[in-house]
Amino acid sequence: MSDKTAYTPATHTAPPAKFSHGVRKGNLLQVAGQVGFLPAEEGKAPTPAGPTLREQTLQTFANVKAILEEGGSSWEDAIMIRVYLTDVAHFPEFNEIWNEYFADLKAPAAARTTVYVGLPPGLLVEVDALAVVD
Amino acid sequence: MSDKTAYTPATHTAPPAKFSHGVRKGNLLQVAGQVGFLPAEEGKAPTPAGPTLREQTLQTFANVKAILEEGGSSWEDAIMIRVYLTDVAHFPEFNEIWNEYFADLKAPAAARTTVYVGLPPGLLVEVDALAVVD
Amino acid sequence: MSDKTAYTPATHTAPPAKFSHGVRKGNLLQVAGQVGFLPAEEGKAPTPAGPTLREQTLQTFANVKAILEEGGSSWEDAIMIRVYLTDVAHFPEFNEIWNEYFADLKAPAAARTTVYVGLPPGLLVEVDALAVVD
Repeated sequence: MSDKTAYTPATHTAPPAKFSHGVRKGNLLQVAGQVGFLPAEEGKAPTPAGPTLREQTLQTFANVKAILEEGGSSWEDAIMIRVYLTDVAHFPEFNEIWNEYFADLKAPAAARTTVYVGLPPGLLVEVDALAVVD
Repeated sequence: MSDKTAYTPATHTAPPAKFSHGVRKGNLLQVAGQVGFLPAEEGKAPTPAGPTLREQTLQTFANVKAILEEGGSSWEDAIMIRVYLTDVAHFPEFNEIWNEYFADLKAPAAARTTVYVGLPPGLLVEVDALAVVD
Repeated sequence: MSDKTAYTPATHTAPPAKFSHGVRKGNLLQVAGQVGFLPAEEGKAPTPAGPTLREQTLQTFANVKAILEEGGSSWEDAIMIRVYLTDVAHFPEFNEIWNEYFADLKAPAAARTTVYVGLPPGLLVEVDALAVVD
């Protein structure tokens, strides 16, 4: 039986239900769907980094990265990144932000699927990731 | 070469195409997207447990659980649960049902991603799960 | 630390951002979301195999298969196939095409989740897959 460990960076807002921001079992580290919420502040509701795709995407990436690192991993280990956007028109700008953000990635890039879904009002992007840690 | 095994609980409706309700290969057990269909009855079309989010969610969870258990696993092993809802307004109630259902979970909770998509008419929720079995 | 390897069949259009069509780490091979683009032609924009669900689905399957095979794997190893359609009305026809395509599959079939999302204009189907290679 492999150990199962949950990871919640101290900066993260609490999940809105009983699930983990990140969990590792065996050599797999799964990061839950992250959105562009700023680091949690005591007594303040979760707040997006801003109204724009760029602000939310960079904050979302930072939130995923924090969980990967809390679990002893990094983007380099990710094999799949799932991207949920709300508007097909955001695809070119999202890819620009993605390419800037991952410009220095050393390992082969993860696979990715991007689809367009509904998200709670004000949120433009959600991202989750699966990493193989060892 | 790891063995690959399919799991279809006797109570489940047949998949609508050539896929498996659950499949294990190596230490991974993947549960296919489940909806709130009641246990199969000979000669009867698949029927949702009811029109409400609560009825469908609890039946959906029961359907996922049956497959996990058929594969020698349980919710305790799940690392990722993907939730597909059809209406953003359902999120708070879904989380209530989720928290009641998972109240007694002993292992660290799985990660989760929730997005809002289209589903066949009458269906309000779909859930799939990935478990690391050993 | 497991090796991480990216796979891009020579026939594939370049990904629209820094991600891999397929990536393997440890015993997992993840195929990125594929659509029904024809094999790449120098200096030509990615072009769908045709306007119909059948044309696009068969090309999408061929694209996923090419990546699985580039990674030393095949459909037989797939444990999860995620299907993104744009129209609930396409479900019966999609299942017909699926069943014909997978008629000769020898291993237990993969699990599957099908949801209805938005895709870029002209695209009716997207598919990704996770395989356990050994």
